[in-house]
Amino acid sequence: MSTLVHETWGNHEALIARVQTNKSGNVGTIKPQTAELASQKDPFNFEYGKSLDSITINYETYGELNTAKDNAILICHALTGSAHAAGTYTEDNVPGWWDPLIGPEKPIDTNRYFVISSNVLGGCYGTTGPSSLNPKSNKAYQLDFPRYTIRDMVKLQKRLIDYLGIESLASVIGGSMGGMQVLEWAAIYPEYLRSIIPIAIGARHSAWAIGLNEVARQAITSDPNWQNGNYALAHQPESGLGLARAIAMLSYRSFDSLESKFGRQRVSETKSLLDKSFEIESYLQYQGVKLVKRFDANTYIYITKAMDDYDLSYSRGFLKDVLQKMTMPALVMGIDSDVLYPEKEQLELMEHLPNASYSQIKSPHGHDAFLIEFPQIAVQLRRFLGGVI
Amino acid sequence: MSTLVHETWGNHEALIARVQTNKSGNVGTIKPQTAELASQKDPFNFEYGKSLDSITINYETYGELNTAKDNAILICHALTGSAHAAGTYTEDNVPGWWDPLIGPEKPIDTNRYFVISSNVLGGCYGTTGPSSLNPKSNKAYQLDFPRYTIRDMVKLQKRLIDYLGIESLASVIGGSMGGMQVLEWAAIYPEYLRSIIPIAIGARHSAWAIGLNEVARQAITSDPNWQNGNYALAHQPESGLGLARAIAMLSYRSFDSLESKFGRQRVSETKSLLDKSFEIESYLQYQGVKLVKRFDANTYIYITKAMDDYDLSYSRGFLKDVLQKMTMPALVMGIDSDVLYPEKEQLELMEHLPNASYSQIKSPHGHDAFLIEFPQIAVQLRRFLGGVI
Repeated sequence: MSTLVHETWGNHEALIARVQTNKSGNVGTIKPQTAELASQKDPFNFEYGKSLDSITINYETYGELNTAKDNAILICHALTGSAHAAGTYTEDNVPGWWDPLIGPEKPIDTNRYFVISSNVLGGCYGTTGPSSLNPKSNKAYQLDFPRYTIRDMVKLQKRLIDYLGIESLASVIGGSMGGMQVLEWAAIYPEYLRSIIPIAIGARHSAWAIGLNEVARQAITSDPNWQNGNYALAHQPESGLGLARAIAMLSYRSFDSLESKFGRQRVSETKSLLDKSFEIESYLQYQGVKLVKRFDANTYIYITKAMDDYDLSYSRGFLKDVLQKMTMPALVMGIDSDVLYPEKEQLELMEHLPNASYSQIKSPHGHDAFLIEFPQIAVQLRRFLGGVI
Repeated sequence: MSTLVHETWGNHEALIARVQTNKSGNVGTIKPQTAELASQKDPFNFEYGKSLDSITINYETYGELNTAKDNAILICHALTGSAHAAGTYTEDNVPGWWDPLIGPEKPIDTNRYFVISSNVLGGCYGTTGPSSLNPKSNKAYQLDFPRYTIRDMVKLQKRLIDYLGIESLASVIGGSMGGMQVLEWAAIYPEYLRSIIPIAIGARHSAWAIGLNEVARQAITSDPNWQNGNYALAHQPESGLGLARAIAMLSYRSFDSLESKFGRQRVSETKSLLDKSFEIESYLQYQGVKLVKRFDANTYIYITKAMDDYDLSYSRGFLKDVLQKMTMPALVMGIDSDVLYPEKEQLELMEHLPNASYSQIKSPHGHDAFLIEFPQIAVQLRRFLGGVI
């Protein structure tokens, strides 16, 4: 099996989806934008304490804001995602991670909606984070960056929404860590939202999910190149970050999807103990190498800590009451083969959300199905967005 | 939560089981035994090539061999297990890993059976393996040890059975990697076995299981203290082996068992990014530290490679035909919450074994249930062993 096959697994489904669901145009070439969202007069205060008086946010928009300024939809990305949800950049031809779902006449229809996607606070795709330059030291923040939470991410997104002059969001949509942001939006700013679509996420991070994040963090911090967080950015702890990704990938897929894709296919007939013997080993290594090229190790530590801290009921009383106050229409989606955020977590949301409908994504692919099963997601988005907004 | 609580989780059930299932005695104080099972005249040849002319096996026996020499039962251990399946040693009071099931009037009744349990070939509990002294170099073998397979383990066990003068085994019993040995016994030496009891195992290692083993191996080999396998035995790659164990522990348990035991219990109110925040993190670390004290890192690599190679049909034709030749009575057990060797794997065995009955262990504890749910296992062992042998 070639590297190329590894590359296209998952994306193949996306291509099919594009044909099936998009008798429609693409958003075309996109230019990322930035905004300054903190100042000495208006510093950004973090939930754990500390504040920054300079924060840049990186974001993209697709479609046009209407005169009533109420046709905006916010898209929230997952752990290693970026603001690049749709379209392509001039310098490459790589479509955004939800491109089949966002565009003219696509399910998130840019003829109708003004779609905003931003890189989270503390990310490494253009928004100020651990790998950004600290203006006070002229070095990267690294472990000096303030610890942040999902609530902090959402509060920075709110600053962006205000900056763009938007007075009401038609919807906030996201899967995985994106879904955490969706639910925190509904808890913090319910009056700004006319609907929410949390996908493949629950009300809090489970012990299982925390455990997986923790072993991934240990893989990073055990790499001598991590240097207690003070590595030169050009010399990442590649082995540790790659291993972290490999561990995570197992939780993003499922027993069945790995079995049907790889089974016991061998790399080659080798007798050396330390060589990789099976394609699944080669695949996991490849996924690690790919992430190392595009993601910062300290950022991985910070963001996974923010995910572990995620608990919708924290400091708010009973979860039941928190969810019952989210009276806007909600479309909750879960994936039948998700072992990381299993459907029971979405069903717990459904138990208490007063105005929610549930949609099950049927997929062998596990948690990653929210980045793969576009036709199924497309149908649900069209139905829900058409009906309630 | 204290270390003590971590220690007793799982063992608590064992204690209950002992009360519930053992209106009976214990095997008492056990002395491990050894046998020399290879010589220059009779070297042991490995499946991957190479041979050794000196192999010591470490084993324990409980009960007495009858004059017909046909009342023996062989117990096979899992990845990090040892020959110490029952009883206690004089120097400590730690019962063997299946002690509630083995003893006078216990389900594997030592008044009736002569029970044998041996440390596998290539193990680090007294049988010759990577951490043993190579008599030719007067140093530990480490990576010079021949690569071995589950079939090699079984062939060495057969030498032990011959050495003990046993002509027929009433049963071979084991869970997890122990179950791999059970099925290989049935494939290689069907005429020696009157029954088999494979528990929580399938016919081959899946891509999922291989992937989990591979990230664990990478954790070890990424530790600079691993030193390309040439570490001093007193200075193991502790961090890497501990991380390997933490990863594996997640796969041995289940979402529900970790959630009900740990949920979001915090270690303490700490704000430091790199501190452990949750009890599940502390638990995983603790499990790692515990394994490092009792297991050798290179041995972990070798044994997980042997598990990954495990494929009952390899070099034997169709799996269906391999299983159909296993005509002895079989009791196949699976665990409803096992995510590592899910029940579909045991059901595949059932589909083709001509003389098998199936028993589901109901447990929230995942794969490790075969070391926890003693009352359920006890009932099935009594029924099966009473009926067929």
